[in-house]
Amino acid sequence: MNEFNFIKHIKDRFSLHAIGDDCAVLPKDDRSDLIITADMLVENVDFRMEWTTPEYLGHKALAVSLSDIAAMGGIPRWAMLSIAVPETLWANGFLNAFYEGWHGLASIFEVELVGGDISRSENGLVIDSTIGGEVNKDKAIKRSGARPGDSIYVSGPLGTAAGGLKILESGKATAGGTLTMKQCRPLPQTRLGIRLGQYDVATSMIDLSDGLSSDLTHLCTASGTGAVIYANDIPFEGELLDFAGSAESLIELALHGGEDFELLFTSTPKRLQQAGINDVFRIGEITDNPGLIESDRNGERELLLPGGFRHF
Amino acid sequence: MNEFNFIKHIKDRFSLHAIGDDCAVLPKDDRSDLIITADMLVENVDFRMEWTTPEYLGHKALAVSLSDIAAMGGIPRWAMLSIAVPETLWANGFLNAFYEGWHGLASIFEVELVGGDISRSENGLVIDSTIGGEVNKDKAIKRSGARPGDSIYVSGPLGTAAGGLKILESGKATAGGTLTMKQCRPLPQTRLGIRLGQYDVATSMIDLSDGLSSDLTHLCTASGTGAVIYANDIPFEGELLDFAGSAESLIELALHGGEDFELLFTSTPKRLQQAGINDVFRIGEITDNPGLIESDRNGERELLLPGGFRHF
Repeated sequence: MNEFNFIKHIKDRFSLHAIGDDCAVLPKDDRSDLIITADMLVENVDFRMEWTTPEYLGHKALAVSLSDIAAMGGIPRWAMLSIAVPETLWANGFLNAFYEGWHGLASIFEVELVGGDISRSENGLVIDSTIGGEVNKDKAIKRSGARPGDSIYVSGPLGTAAGGLKILESGKATAGGTLTMKQCRPLPQTRLGIRLGQYDVATSMIDLSDGLSSDLTHLCTASGTGAVIYANDIPFEGELLDFAGSAESLIELALHGGEDFELLFTSTPKRLQQAGINDVFRIGEITDNPGLIESDRNGERELLLPGGFRHF
Repeated sequence: MNEFNFIKHIKDRFSLHAIGDDCAVLPKDDRSDLIITADMLVENVDFRMEWTTPEYLGHKALAVSLSDIAAMGGIPRWAMLSIAVPETLWANGFLNAFYEGWHGLASIFEVELVGGDISRSENGLVIDSTIGGEVNKDKAIKRSGARPGDSIYVSGPLGTAAGGLKILESGKATAGGTLTMKQCRPLPQTRLGIRLGQYDVATSMIDLSDGLSSDLTHLCTASGTGAVIYANDIPFEGELLDFAGSAESLIELALHGGEDFELLFTSTPKRLQQAGINDVFRIGEITDNPGLIESDRNGERELLLPGGFRHF
């Protein structure tokens, strides 16, 4: 059983209604709902110390959760941070630098650290980042709202972080260039998420953490739809083409590479125009073929199977 | 720098006002506040797999956080659960049993699992348990409300879990008897916490996770007071005396042993009587000597220095 199936199994077993989106949505007051998300980052599984800096890691721990808040159209408010720290890191000032990086991003969006926990770890750093945010009552943008005919958009270039990961894995560079910095210090689409939420623009949304093919599958499954992606329309960084070497390799990274933390959402050109949002990229359409997700390249269609990151 | 000093350093460095109690208190609506807490449990630091069962561990992961909600006088509502799981545990059904144990306790208090995360771990299980609860507006019971003359109470016997830990460490038994079960499957004082919160009974409160000497120090530091504990008045389980062998050893466990997850609070006999609460134990008094915490045994007083558990 993979991790997504296991989560579905637990959801069904215990009738857990709030599970299955980027954030849980809970009633707050008459005008707003509380949204909450948690992300666990494990050393040597989700990151490697030698590829990054304590400041970048603090930044990223917050960014990945901010991205989930953005994916619901929410405004981030507060955070909890739990860390299991090896003795060596406790002694060498790592945590100070980590919190500086965390706070540098938090202060931009006025996210307040309100709690968490510190434990000791015998084997590697483990971080759990929880964020609470707000959305207007019943206005959280879910994965399940896509309808046939909707256009599919992304907020920015894809495959960048996956390219960065390959560079880091090759040992040829540490964090520095466009690709590696996207991997080590991703910028969440917080402002776009809030705009999409406030103006009822997006019909459905998810953040691109696992990879386009996987995350689009999650969205289509929740919506009971299919989709076609126009591979040639996917935006990418110029550096990624240089790195990838071929169009084939580039498209592979863009379709399946994880951790870009861009937003993937559905809407219509008219809705976007009315909201004055023009800095996003149309990459496909929602279809009425439930479960059928295809990529179209120069008119040739093939099945797009989820190929993104999984822990299990 | 120990962990408590580090947390104070971060709190001061970034002006974090919500940190420093068992839960953060955040505004929810006109009538209530949201309270939140997180606890991280790390294999071979906070627990050992060979001493417990997956079900007990699931129970305990929830219990330790429920205890923090109780310590603010709150009603628990929802939970997030993040887990980093080694491959072997993923494959052998551990998580199913873990969630059964978690849910067994959650269902008693109608706590709903609303989210979390699953990651892979290369070295040992790591669990981060976050709970959200509710208190009446501005009525969360803080550590800082104790006043000279208040009596000090505990909700139940002390030193039990520490005795259980010693038995487990000795390798003579696994979870089964009163002492080991208190260590592996503690019961949070959720109902008492709610009663103390609803009737404005407690002036200050903390849960006994680190140990009486440490947790009382936290409470007195926050309140700007001192305290005297009447060591002979501390309640204990009969089995603990059998195990400890001597009164000295028994009192040592009761004063410094952690993880009983009983409540430590201050109030007056009159307030307790008015609220009809008589199933608690008076063990001392708050004094007006800030920072001076003493234990009194047969009229002889000595300094009670924090001797409870610390990760760093």
